[in-house]
Amino acid sequence: MTTYKAPLADIRFALYDVLGAEALFSRLGFSDASRDIVDAVLEEGARFNETVLAPLNRVGDEVGCQYDKASGDVTTPPGFKQAYAQYVDGGWAGLVSPVEFGGQGLPHAAGIPLKEMIDAANLAWGNFPLLSHGATEALLHHGEDWQQQVFLKKLVDGSWTGTMCLTEPHCGTDLGMLKTKASPNDDGSHSISGTKIFITAGEHDFTDNIIHLVLARLPDAPAGSKGISMFIVPKFKVGKDGVVGARNGVRCGAIEHKMGIHGSATCVINFDDAQGWLIGEPNKGLMAMFTMMNTARLAVGLQGLGLADRAYQNALRYSRERLQGRSLSGAKQPDKPADPIIVHPDVRRMLLTCKALTEGGRLLGYHAATLVDVVGHAGDEAERKQADALLGFVTPIVKACLTEWGVECTYHALQCFGGHGYIAEHGMEQLARDARITTLYEGTTGIQALDLMGRKVMQLQGAGLRVFLGMIDSFCKDNENDEALKEFVAPLREKAGEWQKLTLSVGQRAIADADEVGAAAYDYLFYSGYLALAYWWARSVAAAEKSSHSEAFKAAKRETARFYFARVLPRTLAHKAAIESGTAPLMALAAERFGG
Amino acid sequence: MTTYKAPLADIRFALYDVLGAEALFSRLGFSDASRDIVDAVLEEGARFNETVLAPLNRVGDEVGCQYDKASGDVTTPPGFKQAYAQYVDGGWAGLVSPVEFGGQGLPHAAGIPLKEMIDAANLAWGNFPLLSHGATEALLHHGEDWQQQVFLKKLVDGSWTGTMCLTEPHCGTDLGMLKTKASPNDDGSHSISGTKIFITAGEHDFTDNIIHLVLARLPDAPAGSKGISMFIVPKFKVGKDGVVGARNGVRCGAIEHKMGIHGSATCVINFDDAQGWLIGEPNKGLMAMFTMMNTARLAVGLQGLGLADRAYQNALRYSRERLQGRSLSGAKQPDKPADPIIVHPDVRRMLLTCKALTEGGRLLGYHAATLVDVVGHAGDEAERKQADALLGFVTPIVKACLTEWGVECTYHALQCFGGHGYIAEHGMEQLARDARITTLYEGTTGIQALDLMGRKVMQLQGAGLRVFLGMIDSFCKDNENDEALKEFVAPLREKAGEWQKLTLSVGQRAIADADEVGAAAYDYLFYSGYLALAYWWARSVAAAEKSSHSEAFKAAKRETARFYFARVLPRTLAHKAAIESGTAPLMALAAERFGG
Repeated sequence: MTTYKAPLADIRFALYDVLGAEALFSRLGFSDASRDIVDAVLEEGARFNETVLAPLNRVGDEVGCQYDKASGDVTTPPGFKQAYAQYVDGGWAGLVSPVEFGGQGLPHAAGIPLKEMIDAANLAWGNFPLLSHGATEALLHHGEDWQQQVFLKKLVDGSWTGTMCLTEPHCGTDLGMLKTKASPNDDGSHSISGTKIFITAGEHDFTDNIIHLVLARLPDAPAGSKGISMFIVPKFKVGKDGVVGARNGVRCGAIEHKMGIHGSATCVINFDDAQGWLIGEPNKGLMAMFTMMNTARLAVGLQGLGLADRAYQNALRYSRERLQGRSLSGAKQPDKPADPIIVHPDVRRMLLTCKALTEGGRLLGYHAATLVDVVGHAGDEAERKQADALLGFVTPIVKACLTEWGVECTYHALQCFGGHGYIAEHGMEQLARDARITTLYEGTTGIQALDLMGRKVMQLQGAGLRVFLGMIDSFCKDNENDEALKEFVAPLREKAGEWQKLTLSVGQRAIADADEVGAAAYDYLFYSGYLALAYWWARSVAAAEKSSHSEAFKAAKRETARFYFARVLPRTLAHKAAIESGTAPLMALAAERFGG
Repeated sequence: MTTYKAPLADIRFALYDVLGAEALFSRLGFSDASRDIVDAVLEEGARFNETVLAPLNRVGDEVGCQYDKASGDVTTPPGFKQAYAQYVDGGWAGLVSPVEFGGQGLPHAAGIPLKEMIDAANLAWGNFPLLSHGATEALLHHGEDWQQQVFLKKLVDGSWTGTMCLTEPHCGTDLGMLKTKASPNDDGSHSISGTKIFITAGEHDFTDNIIHLVLARLPDAPAGSKGISMFIVPKFKVGKDGVVGARNGVRCGAIEHKMGIHGSATCVINFDDAQGWLIGEPNKGLMAMFTMMNTARLAVGLQGLGLADRAYQNALRYSRERLQGRSLSGAKQPDKPADPIIVHPDVRRMLLTCKALTEGGRLLGYHAATLVDVVGHAGDEAERKQADALLGFVTPIVKACLTEWGVECTYHALQCFGGHGYIAEHGMEQLARDARITTLYEGTTGIQALDLMGRKVMQLQGAGLRVFLGMIDSFCKDNENDEALKEFVAPLREKAGEWQKLTLSVGQRAIADADEVGAAAYDYLFYSGYLALAYWWARSVAAAEKSSHSEAFKAAKRETARFYFARVLPRTLAHKAAIESGTAPLMALAAERFGG
């Protein structure tokens, strides 16, 4: 079985030493987010996750959620419901929600480590509260006053949970095709009918009510994605006065049997003349849903990070304990029957890849969370705008890279266990199966790549990219004469210049052929991700040097950064070649000839 | 659910057009391996696999093998036993075994497509006969006459199956530590006692007897790997006269719960004073076991190939059927509600990666099988020696690359399905879970890399590498003036030169620091694999051009080769950089600092 220990030292390093969170929170007016308070939250969160959620991870996989066909009820795995009650009692549900709706009003960047811990401790369990956050965001930004009073407070205090009902059997990515219908009723509500699939936390036994946010079409709606509206559809009807009434026409029709996250209920939800309330403008539902989706995309990125870290922790422990073979350069523990496998360079390659992607990825993800706070709270409009552009730019990178790296790290970590990694008992294979969903839901990696290249770079003319390049440039200027940083600053500067040129060249080619965008998107996203990580690793070394951490801590950051620059960053060479090769190698083969 | 259609056209292309199997078989004296006969075998094999084994793939996963603690018996999934009976009746068990022991005496290269088909159709089922092949090889090469008469014939005709009992709880890769004991008895047999784990097909209900080949230590054996002997230990005792007697002291103590291949029984086998017969020389068991392991390693490579092909076939079908979104360069099927997803460049990227790795990988694997035939049957000793060196060199490449590419292709193929890929019903996630074992058993990828770099390149001074470089060189010379091949010949020649230089540079650095071998091994193996595939793709284009295939077939080979050279081969750039970075980035960080 795998264990989990929250990486508090590195979390603090990321927040305080690299991202300067203490000064940032203070500047943004979070008076309750002093270092002492955030530290206490981190420690209490670590305790909750290590002792309550992490031990339930395996039973969640083994027992899974159970569906009762007769009642349509879903029973969550043993202990899940009780853990949720503890979570609510502990006040975790509303940690970063506004005080006026009963939340604790902490900055997103102070809440994101908790998110990482939950994902590492128990990803399947974490999906229940996760979807509430999306619904909270949608209600905050688009809900009418009564909707906020009635629904939002219950979501913030955790009494109820939320869902996002987008996908239908025939449409996922292409929501323009969705068929669920909404007919207006006399009382201002709508009757919603249709079938939604892949609804995470769509049914469960945690709470008395579940608030579905549903995309549907009004009778006179235009075809395609411009005719989609969003509705609030509770499992039990709720009046404008907040009084809970009869069961609504909402029923779970089945739960999916999945590769992993067995403890998370992935539901078919049938809406049959269910009472729903329009939220936001008619036919603007897709835009409202994007408010939820961007938050959710960052959150899913963190899932990849959490799993990568847990996998790494366990592979590291095993690699130190497992005695097998001798170091090629001479026995390292001659008194033992064999050396621990961490002496072997190839085991170190796998471990260091996990370490570099996880610690670097933590900064990628946490930095995005600080941008959410700046966008929401900075006094200066120009600063907010700039942060918003950068946040839009990094969101698909965070989502796609952290999840693909999560898959990669759980792969390497399992591989360190040899055949034992494949056996359920050791728990490594569960982490690998659980990680596999993260590159699929909330927009596949390919969709993130198109969002980055097509929308954030092309349509928005690279506003976010320019901000990021500016950050790299100032870091390089500030540190160009620092002997200790030279080895990182020089390649970073070179790669950043290359990034800019690659962007321009794709843009130019796309004028002639729109498929150039799709052809370059995936490799462009990963080029960007690896470059971003190089930046964060260089900044980590700089921050460590300036910090009061031990020499050993500084050395670990420096050596890991060196590993990253020498052995991971060169992946950009392959991505660059792929980007430059353009559309022809991808588009020349006729679809009917793929079979040979 | 996934379907499977044996890729007969591409199999024939690989065997006949590229590898010239017809002439080769004739030259090696396989008089029964005419093209007509081999074709008939392929077609009958395709029918068996498509209609008998492939439909059992899902039930094998869902029901799995069941273990009865009271009896120690293992029940295989519904239909598995009957399918094995059909397999035996069809004469498949002894397809490539010598005629003198009841086999059909076909060349290995004629049998390898059947292996691929079985792995694609039903990997878990295929593990039962697979292990018999290993035992067959060991008995052929090392068995005494009576052992061959008594055991070999039963393995060849499929009446009994075999196993390889190497791993113990505390040792897998490092077999020198094994503890299982063998004490001599007065009748010339030995009493074997110990516990073996991860024994594939260690217990089942297919056959009346199971022949375990067990590694154990004689009382006076030297410590370490030079004190290991191999024993034949049947489940039911067998006299030298072939008469089957009482139950032996062999019992299955448990079966493992695994990530995948649920239909394959992975057993703990307890030997308790079991009667065993020494096979081969005392204390030379490891060498004898290597005879089995090399065959098994090629076979496991083919497992990766089979799964990659099945995954690709299903992803291709889905990508042609699933309507979602519009082509960025304009609607391709404007009469439908959306375009099929194969119009999107990023979906094509995933599909073409699968196609390029699968069709190219097929040649890598099949070529190795032709080398097995040359080693065993060529009249000229120099030719046999050269083929043997090359076979030793390519075996770790086939094993590691085909299995890692199998994991990669099942990953891409699942990804093409979006969220549906994660649902058990569609079957894609089973392929991904099943594929995951292949990079672990029969020596992990890291072990293959060490075998290639440490043993085949360093210890054997690159004899196999030189043969391979010679093949590339003559191909390039033969085709350097061919306009149609120029685009492939030039980069192939350049990369081959680079390969040679990289090899030399690692060798030189390894003189000063033995860890250089381990540090370079993984990246060197993949550099070699991608280069080998470039060679086979170039040869495929050349062979297609010279063949009587349709223009469309030729175009498909050419376009896929172009994709490979433009978008996959550049991965060598990252591997080259990693190789050149040497040991420092891997070895500098002290083991106790990996935790931060």
